[in-house]
Amino acid sequence: MKHLEIMKSPVELNLKNYLMTGDPVVNQIRKLNDLKGIFQDQEAFNLMDQEQLAYTVQSWLPVADGTPGGLFFGASTIYPGKVGNEYFMTKGHFHSQSDRAEFYWGVQGKGMLILMDRDKNIWAEEVYPGSLHYIGGEIAHRLANTSDENLIVGACWPSDAGHDYEEIAVNGFSARLVEVDGKPILV
Amino acid sequence: MKHLEIMKSPVELNLKNYLMTGDPVVNQIRKLNDLKGIFQDQEAFNLMDQEQLAYTVQSWLPVADGTPGGLFFGASTIYPGKVGNEYFMTKGHFHSQSDRAEFYWGVQGKGMLILMDRDKNIWAEEVYPGSLHYIGGEIAHRLANTSDENLIVGACWPSDAGHDYEEIAVNGFSARLVEVDGKPILV
Repeated sequence: MKHLEIMKSPVELNLKNYLMTGDPVVNQIRKLNDLKGIFQDQEAFNLMDQEQLAYTVQSWLPVADGTPGGLFFGASTIYPGKVGNEYFMTKGHFHSQSDRAEFYWGVQGKGMLILMDRDKNIWAEEVYPGSLHYIGGEIAHRLANTSDENLIVGACWPSDAGHDYEEIAVNGFSARLVEVDGKPILV
Repeated sequence: MKHLEIMKSPVELNLKNYLMTGDPVVNQIRKLNDLKGIFQDQEAFNLMDQEQLAYTVQSWLPVADGTPGGLFFGASTIYPGKVGNEYFMTKGHFHSQSDRAEFYWGVQGKGMLILMDRDKNIWAEEVYPGSLHYIGGEIAHRLANTSDENLIVGACWPSDAGHDYEEIAVNGFSARLVEVDGKPILV
């Protein structure tokens, strides 16, 4: 940041597939093995290759986790697949600082953003290229891939939001997104 | 948000040009007439059509301005043009709650994100399709279009950030982005 200098940002985004590149980018992968207990059909789950990728998350965290006023930016890729009749999905979480919001937007593929409030009302929004989703505070959220190709979603959220995975890991969502007659429904 | 309902988000984003559609979308336009005083060459400015569009901003503000923890999402289109040798640019602002950050990302065209800290150090980051920019707190920011086509930029910022245009309107930035020998430089 030298006075009058013209430079490049340290992170680039491939606008087609939201692949993020650059030194600050953090990469996380989630295999089926990391998602034990989130799917209903345990028997089907146990028969599957536990090393199979379920989803990946890339993020740029320019400030320390917990910093007030800052923002994080990320991209998630959820792979296609089902456990029984339930679509591959992310773990899902409330935010630790639970009034914190998040934006998601669909980049590639088709899926659902599953949302649940503190009263356990649950609903979903269709995710597709160009769908833009506001996830208000106090709303747990998870993504499911309902298609045969990768579901890619961009995200921006406050750096002091945090992730409360525990509530969902223990109590789950109050309904499941399953395929019935070839279509996703919440049951 | 009926329990178990599957719905669409009220806002869509055209991923190619970031045109935002849907009832909640707010549209703002800025003509040259709205930008009096921000360019150095007043004489050149006065000879130009004051009704000429300089930039447009679309935004989705899902919560009230000032709400803690919420987020806003927007897209800016800066039209190509110069006033003298100075590129068309946005007014520029600090955030009112001045520790609040913002993400910008280039979608179409070429330009510069001009940044200035409270000590009036000024620098710029190249904006192009896929460039991703973190604007930390206490950093004034403005976009300039250095190309012959529209510059389109996506943005996400906290709903309690606010805009302090006054500081820039009164004191300006400490340097200008001008074209010299066909290239943009800060002087």
